[in-house]
Amino acid sequence: MTRTASHVVDQAQAVLDLLADKGWTIATCESLTGGLLAAALIDPPGASTVVRGGLVTYATDLKATLADVPDDLLAAKGAVSSAVALAMADGSRVRCGADVGVATTGVAGPDPVGSVPVGTAWVAVCWPGGFQAQRALHPGDRAAVRAATVEMALGLVASCLGSSPAR
Amino acid sequence: MTRTASHVVDQAQAVLDLLADKGWTIATCESLTGGLLAAALIDPPGASTVVRGGLVTYATDLKATLADVPDDLLAAKGAVSSAVALAMADGSRVRCGADVGVATTGVAGPDPVGSVPVGTAWVAVCWPGGFQAQRALHPGDRAAVRAATVEMALGLVASCLGSSPAR
Repeated sequence: MTRTASHVVDQAQAVLDLLADKGWTIATCESLTGGLLAAALIDPPGASTVVRGGLVTYATDLKATLADVPDDLLAAKGAVSSAVALAMADGSRVRCGADVGVATTGVAGPDPVGSVPVGTAWVAVCWPGGFQAQRALHPGDRAAVRAATVEMALGLVASCLGSSPAR
Repeated sequence: MTRTASHVVDQAQAVLDLLADKGWTIATCESLTGGLLAAALIDPPGASTVVRGGLVTYATDLKATLADVPDDLLAAKGAVSSAVALAMADGSRVRCGADVGVATTGVAGPDPVGSVPVGTAWVAVCWPGGFQAQRALHPGDRAAVRAATVEMALGLVASCLGSSPAR
């Protein structure tokens, strides 16, 4: 069975509680994690009150067509970059009508993409009080890189929301 | 760690192989499974050659705005119906530029939605040779219902593609 690990469920529940406290909703835009982050967020009962939905922009061109990431930004910075991660996060909240957007992009492997090594992950969060991006290099296979990136993304959302007053 | 069960990985690999044989690509539109189906499809290495991406239309209105499900269809049939599942599958392949679209909608619980009982799942597939929808009533908690629906969706895709000649 595909089941989210219990500490990730706790992390997701903490994010949902922070969102509910502020009266905010959330949306996702995922490349590296391909749907795992959205799935983690809807795991707790009651998620539907704060989770709007998300975009899985696995193919690079879908980052532009689904999430409104500018083509020239993709060309200049590459799909695995802080700028694109931030644009994906912002695009998800606009397209999904959410207050908060969170995005993941990176290289799961088994092969590097150009000069970007396997395990590279960028996560980004846009919320009514600002925006933030974070980079990591995760060890392990494709599943391990993705699982670590889901935890990293949930952690960044909690950190951003926890330090931000409601608008 | 969030890791897809090995038999689901095998199922996803079989779907990717069928797609590669036909030179087709795939996209998802998920409500009930909220990203788990897309995540299962991108789990095998090499997925990027056939998986385009997907939509997580968790909120009902996103089924219309992201996946082009007609509002009057949603009003007439409800979000958990064969007609809406088929429209979601078709919407995902159009929006994501894929040959095949697969969709999930249902009730994960803990509470029923109107007259629709917990565990109800509709999955639908649209491909160049036709379209098909399938209903099930899965036992268990939210995670069990979702995991069973991912397996059901991968099974339906394999069945539809296996019986369809390349265009």
